[in-house]
Amino acid sequence: MSSNRGLFITFEGVEGCGKSTQAERLVTWLRERGYEVVLTREPGGTLLGERLRDALLDVGGSMVAETELFLYLASRAEHTAEVIVPAIERGSVVISDRYADASVAYQGGGRRLGADLVRSLNQVATRSVKPDVTFLMDLDPEEGLTRLDGRASGGTRDRIERETIEFHQRVREAYLAEAEREPERFVVIDAGEDVETIARKIPVILEERLTSSGDDN
Amino acid sequence: MSSNRGLFITFEGVEGCGKSTQAERLVTWLRERGYEVVLTREPGGTLLGERLRDALLDVGGSMVAETELFLYLASRAEHTAEVIVPAIERGSVVISDRYADASVAYQGGGRRLGADLVRSLNQVATRSVKPDVTFLMDLDPEEGLTRLDGRASGGTRDRIERETIEFHQRVREAYLAEAEREPERFVVIDAGEDVETIARKIPVILEERLTSSGDDN
Repeated sequence: MSSNRGLFITFEGVEGCGKSTQAERLVTWLRERGYEVVLTREPGGTLLGERLRDALLDVGGSMVAETELFLYLASRAEHTAEVIVPAIERGSVVISDRYADASVAYQGGGRRLGADLVRSLNQVATRSVKPDVTFLMDLDPEEGLTRLDGRASGGTRDRIERETIEFHQRVREAYLAEAEREPERFVVIDAGEDVETIARKIPVILEERLTSSGDDN
Repeated sequence: MSSNRGLFITFEGVEGCGKSTQAERLVTWLRERGYEVVLTREPGGTLLGERLRDALLDVGGSMVAETELFLYLASRAEHTAEVIVPAIERGSVVISDRYADASVAYQGGGRRLGADLVRSLNQVATRSVKPDVTFLMDLDPEEGLTRLDGRASGGTRDRIERETIEFHQRVREAYLAEAEREPERFVVIDAGEDVETIARKIPVILEERLTSSGDDN
């Protein structure tokens, strides 16, 4: 990595795995050390993306699997070109709560559209941008959904959260398959551990990864 | 074609070419002869599609080319699965004011994303459904845009209509290239002729096409 280019980190995992919490904890850790950090999320991250997020997660909405996939890709194309790439280019650390791997897991695995198809469409949407490091918060989906139902907001499950447990199992498996495919990018975290333990672990792993990838260059 | 399957006809062309008028005239002609006809359009045709149509054509909106393409594909996937295929399967004639070729022309040609890429993405969105007959209303874009500006509604041009004349020339060329590629599906109509002449011609050509394709089966 050139000294001017920033860093792109993503958090992935099934519903209730704690990735949003860990993304925020890492933002705090980095900011305390003087880094400029942009925290973003998918679907969303742009005005258009947030509008699509509403359509995608609306409990009352229903759509065919291909429609869902293309809406995520539309959101991702805008998010990548308008937010992620400019921030990386000005030297920021960009942390995204979900990104392209989520479509491989949810639409490729969960909706059975296939990982190969989704990976090739992701290349168009991201213009081949890839995260430097991806933290996969691995958790049994049953445990994750139980956590969701107990959350303080007491919120009802959204359209995706309401899918069958088999759907969420396929999502988890597809995530793990991606991690095996790209071990140099993925860090698999046992999301069953407590929040504080994980929050201490992630910056240590991040520093190790960045140091060793720096050696390669 | 089996006797139970309906028919899928699309109208394509640059802005102001008169395709919407001709689509409506053909609907009337077919209904007078007892056919059940579904008239639909892209972007649009479904609740989600009409919402996306607003986002896509909104003059104030701006988006990267890939985002635009994926939004059209999302609209098309829903439109195909929820409207077009069910109507064809119950034996109706479906007439769509624009369909997949429009993305090859506008995003592939106009936005320069390339016809090959758009064709392959269309296959995912349409699940390989193709029109039986496509009427391409061919017109010099300068002439089309002049017609638009003179229309009774006196409306301002939408986001796509406001593109440069070079953009619209690329759209026209991409449409003509598709017609050359699939001469058995496309009928190129000189949209410079008057409305009545074209409206008399189209049903005659349609009957010829369907009779000759019937011979092949």
